[in-house]
Amino acid sequence: MSSKNLLVISQITDDQKNVIKKMGINVFGIDDLDVQVSKNEINILYGWNKKIGLDIINADHSSLEWIHAISAGVDSIPMDILSKRNIKLTNASGIHAESISQSVIAFILHFVRGIDNAESNRLNKNWITNENTQPAIISDFDYLIFGTGHIGQQIARLLKSLGGHTTGVNTSGHPAEYFDKTVSIKNVSNQLIHADVIINVMPLTDSTLHYFNYDRFASAKEIFLFINVGRGPVVESKGLIKAINDGTIKHAALDVFEEEPLKSDSPFWTLPNTIITPHNTGVVRHFKNKQMRIFLPNLEQYLKDGTFKSNQVNLNSGY
Amino acid sequence: MSSKNLLVISQITDDQKNVIKKMGINVFGIDDLDVQVSKNEINILYGWNKKIGLDIINADHSSLEWIHAISAGVDSIPMDILSKRNIKLTNASGIHAESISQSVIAFILHFVRGIDNAESNRLNKNWITNENTQPAIISDFDYLIFGTGHIGQQIARLLKSLGGHTTGVNTSGHPAEYFDKTVSIKNVSNQLIHADVIINVMPLTDSTLHYFNYDRFASAKEIFLFINVGRGPVVESKGLIKAINDGTIKHAALDVFEEEPLKSDSPFWTLPNTIITPHNTGVVRHFKNKQMRIFLPNLEQYLKDGTFKSNQVNLNSGY
Repeated sequence: MSSKNLLVISQITDDQKNVIKKMGINVFGIDDLDVQVSKNEINILYGWNKKIGLDIINADHSSLEWIHAISAGVDSIPMDILSKRNIKLTNASGIHAESISQSVIAFILHFVRGIDNAESNRLNKNWITNENTQPAIISDFDYLIFGTGHIGQQIARLLKSLGGHTTGVNTSGHPAEYFDKTVSIKNVSNQLIHADVIINVMPLTDSTLHYFNYDRFASAKEIFLFINVGRGPVVESKGLIKAINDGTIKHAALDVFEEEPLKSDSPFWTLPNTIITPHNTGVVRHFKNKQMRIFLPNLEQYLKDGTFKSNQVNLNSGY
Repeated sequence: MSSKNLLVISQITDDQKNVIKKMGINVFGIDDLDVQVSKNEINILYGWNKKIGLDIINADHSSLEWIHAISAGVDSIPMDILSKRNIKLTNASGIHAESISQSVIAFILHFVRGIDNAESNRLNKNWITNENTQPAIISDFDYLIFGTGHIGQQIARLLKSLGGHTTGVNTSGHPAEYFDKTVSIKNVSNQLIHADVIINVMPLTDSTLHYFNYDRFASAKEIFLFINVGRGPVVESKGLIKAINDGTIKHAALDVFEEEPLKSDSPFWTLPNTIITPHNTGVVRHFKNKQMRIFLPNLEQYLKDGTFKSNQVNLNSGY
């Protein structure tokens, strides 16, 4: 068997390149395409770019076998084509769990512990200590987390350590670590009427697109806090904006949006009681190293027997 | 033995009053003083008020035996007099640990996860995602916690669950639960040069008064975040303000101050990168019930043998 050709789309360090080469792999960069190596000779893509990726997949006599996506969400990759061509897909699920879950706890504590009130009192030079401004604690609220994968589990684990009660929502209601309870998304309406804090970390699939819309929010109990750190299009923008503006949702923290970046005239910037972050809660320092801790063991295993140690994406479910 | 007379200074409910009466105690309110009961007949004070308390302690033939303070800090109570008159003191240490520790984590995550940046970007309608604004995570910083009692331990426990490394500071360097390490306050200078986040939860005593002053802050590594949720006078105001203004302290979160409430012209209101809360991080909902869970078992034990189940204050150390 001739050695495999790997195309690096997402940057890696020279040291990392050398480690891969020592495993008998030919490593190419984008500039090498059609110069050092032709598109139909690429076996492995490290990273994903829609234009380059589709060019390689659709090349005559394409040899592409495996794409490693460096994000957890892989909704920009055409699963149906991969499935048809028998191209395997791995992702970086898990790598963002620590940083995203810490942002989620930051958002929750911000509103639960009244840092929003403190900030407006500071601006008004106003020392207020009456009963109405007594901060709550985590255990005063119920938490409903849509998505029980790595990220959802880390959020549940941290909420538990803070005394919070969590219910996880997934496709079948199967149990998941750290959650007090899980339910199937089909039976979620009974949960919505009890939840104070709703957190979305679901992947974007055909069935989650615009899952959260105005009617969904209105069918819940008054929502103390809605957090979206999953995927923007899982939430219908207009319905979300309406629900925040009319008080159906009292507070919100939003990291992802249907259209990114937000334009300067976006209505999201001026929503009341809302934290906006620029799709950066999942940003990971030392990202390249952490990525390699997923990719290299998978590469080693794949060269042996064509399987993966972890993080293979099911092309039907999309995660 | 005639039954004991208890004076209620801090409000309790009628139900709680009845529970205490059923234990054979005569319960009086402040309005009963010199009417139903004379000052020298009071055996137990529930709560503390300086004027009333001193009147009772200093009454001719005072019968005062025990003061239960409903706060953790008892620095407004004259320990020397209590010690001389053999008056016992219990406090509410532990009752505020959950809420204070949750505020501390809220403050830390606010700055570590860049909610401060997010807020200013929102006001400027500015979507910024460059490398300089990548949020950090908890494990990127070292945490030095002055005070290893109930509150310090809860802070250490939560930081641990978030991946943080904590060093506790106490009088002797004795070990304390949840801390990775503890040191004596005498040897703290070696720790100050490594700490990124400094948290004060020390009680106010003669030796902690103005412990934190400008020189102390300047002797540390650049301080990413200074938090005071202990006692205001443990920090010298002028030095703190100078250290925040000149960047020795990059961010601060302050719940307690030398003079409270802050006046509208206080320089604290306009400090950069600072969260100000009105001495309310320790506010506890259902406070009266939680207080009784400490007081009633102590009362029962005290009537039996003159000792306490928990929360007796050492009159020499002051906590």
